[in-house]
Amino acid sequence: MSTRPVRVGLDVGGTKIDAVAVAPDGEILGRLRRPTGWGEDAVVDSIVQAVTALARETGLALTDIGSVGIGIPGVVDVDGGRVIHAVNLGVESLDLAARAQAALGMPFRVENDVKAAALGAAVLRGASESMAYLNLGTGVAAGIVFGGRIHRGARGTAGEVGHISVDPNGRLCGCGQRGCIETFCGGGALAKAWGRPGALPVQDILDAADAGDPAAIALRDDLHHGAAAAVRVLVLSADVETVVIGGGLTALGSRLEDGIRAALRADAERSAFMSTLRLDERIEILAAGSPAAAFGAALIGASVSEKEIVFHG
Amino acid sequence: MSTRPVRVGLDVGGTKIDAVAVAPDGEILGRLRRPTGWGEDAVVDSIVQAVTALARETGLALTDIGSVGIGIPGVVDVDGGRVIHAVNLGVESLDLAARAQAALGMPFRVENDVKAAALGAAVLRGASESMAYLNLGTGVAAGIVFGGRIHRGARGTAGEVGHISVDPNGRLCGCGQRGCIETFCGGGALAKAWGRPGALPVQDILDAADAGDPAAIALRDDLHHGAAAAVRVLVLSADVETVVIGGGLTALGSRLEDGIRAALRADAERSAFMSTLRLDERIEILAAGSPAAAFGAALIGASVSEKEIVFHG
Repeated sequence: MSTRPVRVGLDVGGTKIDAVAVAPDGEILGRLRRPTGWGEDAVVDSIVQAVTALARETGLALTDIGSVGIGIPGVVDVDGGRVIHAVNLGVESLDLAARAQAALGMPFRVENDVKAAALGAAVLRGASESMAYLNLGTGVAAGIVFGGRIHRGARGTAGEVGHISVDPNGRLCGCGQRGCIETFCGGGALAKAWGRPGALPVQDILDAADAGDPAAIALRDDLHHGAAAAVRVLVLSADVETVVIGGGLTALGSRLEDGIRAALRADAERSAFMSTLRLDERIEILAAGSPAAAFGAALIGASVSEKEIVFHG
Repeated sequence: MSTRPVRVGLDVGGTKIDAVAVAPDGEILGRLRRPTGWGEDAVVDSIVQAVTALARETGLALTDIGSVGIGIPGVVDVDGGRVIHAVNLGVESLDLAARAQAALGMPFRVENDVKAAALGAAVLRGASESMAYLNLGTGVAAGIVFGGRIHRGARGTAGEVGHISVDPNGRLCGCGQRGCIETFCGGGALAKAWGRPGALPVQDILDAADAGDPAAIALRDDLHHGAAAAVRVLVLSADVETVVIGGGLTALGSRLEDGIRAALRADAERSAFMSTLRLDERIEILAAGSPAAAFGAALIGASVSEKEIVFHG
């Protein structure tokens, strides 16, 4: 192994942190999952513990770690290392990079989790072409990667396709608009529209649809058509070559994937123009257990180190 | 003036060609408009005549012209210099660059007219930030410019926002889908929905709406909401800083601009998220008579020369 330092990446989710240690050549040296704390102090503590546990289990000293990147839900001020409105983590405003760096010493960089996953998925696929990562979870958002770099856009809303309205008569979205893509294929909106108790409401919807429940069938159609709409928007605006679909709803497996493909094919059958785009061949589902988000975070953490070397050296 | 050659750019429209001669420092040395021929041979002839007339009126020899760029409606194979399906020009398939180069000697490069206008508008604005050019004409399409370069996308559909459906119950689009953005704010779709004779149907719609005609008021709302939807899609996917609106419908002036702004503001009032984007402040209407499209074509023509110098030198 080279003497260049190990890069650590953390994907901080609502319940767990996925942590990877990445060698300079890109090899994943170690990986572990730890529970995420709730609230600002607990989030910082659980991140510090994840890094120290990962170092211990991978046989590294903390001084071997050259940088840590964190992918985290919420609005992220990348340059300032701050997280704002990460409601699933109980975080209102957190100086995450500064606090973690003060505790552990190495430089931290923070990025929105979907953007980190987009970069990680693109690099792990070896994709030099453009790619979008469409995250179907409680909410819906995408990250766009052009030429191996995250496309952040002018004001950080690149890939926010969840809040594009595709039906003026659709359900009211939490954002205040009607018929947003997220109202069709976001897990939160689907659970609310379903309105029945259950730990896995979207799975319940698909089970009930398979059993012939008309309300469930309508929501299943919404799920597939909403995700298909997001794919169409990404290709007809940014024109990415591939849309990789990830997020919690991908636990639905082929019932999700086959449904999205079928919705894209049905659209292509109605439209000669859409059929030329071959969208059904341009989607992929991120493999279960993929380290893409934590790996992408590691790359982002290393990118700040490179920047600092340029600035200071 | 430097000894570097003059760059000529042509914006080939359905009725006229707008031609500019651009000095190496970016100054526009001369400009003229000529009628466009109908059909493949006549299109080539009118382009050859526009270049020779422009040279004569600007006091240039043809050998002073280092390159010619052509912006033209239709599907363009940029590398091959071919135009396919330019229905407004009576062109099915045309080896335009090769034929024009054979007639005049200097290298030609061909690009889709909306993409050429996007580049020209971005450079004329001095915009280093990202920009989209939204063309509202018979149809609706956008060109996206990041960092002074046209974003073509993986398969050439970047900016094709006209065929994103925003209403599953909307009017049938020529593309086979329902409720495409183009069915709301494309001049062709609006004229068809209006269904009354007249040389300027969209202006007739606005006049009738001002006079209280309910059908016209509904179509006027469609126009403004459709254009606002295109702006939203461009910002929530590619996140361009500014959307410059051009095309034939901008002849409607403030009746178009004020209506699009009002639609964006009404949306922002319903949605705290949308209000943070300040979309009504991020649109501009391309000034009447702007040479943006021809100027952008000139830049594109020069870019092929540079490429050839690299390849051959």
